[in-house]
Amino acid sequence: MTDGKRSGEVVDVRWHAHAVTRAERERAAGHRGCVLWFTGLSGCGKSTLANAVDRRLHDRGCRTFVLDGDNVRHGLSAAPAMLEARHGREFAARFGLGFGPADREENIRRIGSVAELFAQAGIITLTAFISPYRRDRDAVRGMLPPGDFVEVFVKAPLEVCEGRDPKGLYKRARAGEIKGFTGIDDPYEEPLAPELVVDSAGAGPDELADQVIAWLERAGTIPRRVSPS
Amino acid sequence: MTDGKRSGEVVDVRWHAHAVTRAERERAAGHRGCVLWFTGLSGCGKSTLANAVDRRLHDRGCRTFVLDGDNVRHGLSAAPAMLEARHGREFAARFGLGFGPADREENIRRIGSVAELFAQAGIITLTAFISPYRRDRDAVRGMLPPGDFVEVFVKAPLEVCEGRDPKGLYKRARAGEIKGFTGIDDPYEEPLAPELVVDSAGAGPDELADQVIAWLERAGTIPRRVSPS
Repeated sequence: MTDGKRSGEVVDVRWHAHAVTRAERERAAGHRGCVLWFTGLSGCGKSTLANAVDRRLHDRGCRTFVLDGDNVRHGLSAAPAMLEARHGREFAARFGLGFGPADREENIRRIGSVAELFAQAGIITLTAFISPYRRDRDAVRGMLPPGDFVEVFVKAPLEVCEGRDPKGLYKRARAGEIKGFTGIDDPYEEPLAPELVVDSAGAGPDELADQVIAWLERAGTIPRRVSPS
Repeated sequence: MTDGKRSGEVVDVRWHAHAVTRAERERAAGHRGCVLWFTGLSGCGKSTLANAVDRRLHDRGCRTFVLDGDNVRHGLSAAPAMLEARHGREFAARFGLGFGPADREENIRRIGSVAELFAQAGIITLTAFISPYRRDRDAVRGMLPPGDFVEVFVKAPLEVCEGRDPKGLYKRARAGEIKGFTGIDDPYEEPLAPELVVDSAGAGPDELADQVIAWLERAGTIPRRVSPS
């Protein structure tokens, strides 16, 4: 990059853009970027599993990040009430997200867009959202380059998830306090062709995390390890 | 993490979350995460400068990413017309973004939310958007932890930017083909207390990038270098 000739007081420079490419970012990271999309019923263990996989990848030196309800619903997909103070009521009503069908669709779309950016940055991006509708998950798959979207179905019977009920949400849904709750009065549409299915009723998060890591090694997303540490 | 006792066929495990912390991610990266928010008129060189800084940081081994119109307006902040095929007209009209005041406000809010996530991931996040309104930039500053938002005002007189006009946008704005164009028929509100001001009419991108890097070293965001490579 060199400056051009001066004209008066103003430097007339050529303003090139030498953008760092995705391939360069992945080379520096030592692995490919991708989106590990964990999907399943509330209480199936998506978030715990995503964090367990994240821990393993981080300890191997991978560049990672977890997107989940905690960090998305407080910012990117904030509820209308959270936006109102700073942006006003009309703005909040239009762009704030609740849990209705269109709101959920837009929530998943925004998360997919952000996950795409993280993958472009060479990061292994783990998302943990119920994402119950096949159409919404397929829309995310469709917006990503081929191979970037890794759908991980965290499978567990409704009874098991309801038995765990870590946040007491099933209890409230059964009592009618929450409407449109996935598995109770709203459907969960199982993936038809996920990259990976893990059985969260039959094994603990350590074992399931190993299965995900093994998949990533087989797929060539991360380098294989000769001896596990 | 250990499995608990079995009850029938179902493994009754304790599902801990051992989330990787931001501090751990920053330690692995070797620098702090932050948001370098480049703001200024169209044609001031925001994007070129952001990419020049990104190149330097990448070559030093930093974890970085650039958010700009190219990668945001095609996904996260897609126009209604881009959403319609997949999501329908009503959805597209509500969530798709144009260039009206509320749409711009929401665009900056989404970008700020995403930049916040990248910073949490320990990444030096560079954003290159005109972001003409003080209120919108201050809203992003307000949503980030103290110290994370680094406002870089890329200063250049309107005449210089209009003289460059790399995309021919000023010409179209002067001809009335684009309405509400910053600097022509819509205001650019200069930052009142930016972390850094760079003079893009008086120096080329190499020199300005050096100034940004020097600032990051002084601020302790990235480690100092004894000898430049």
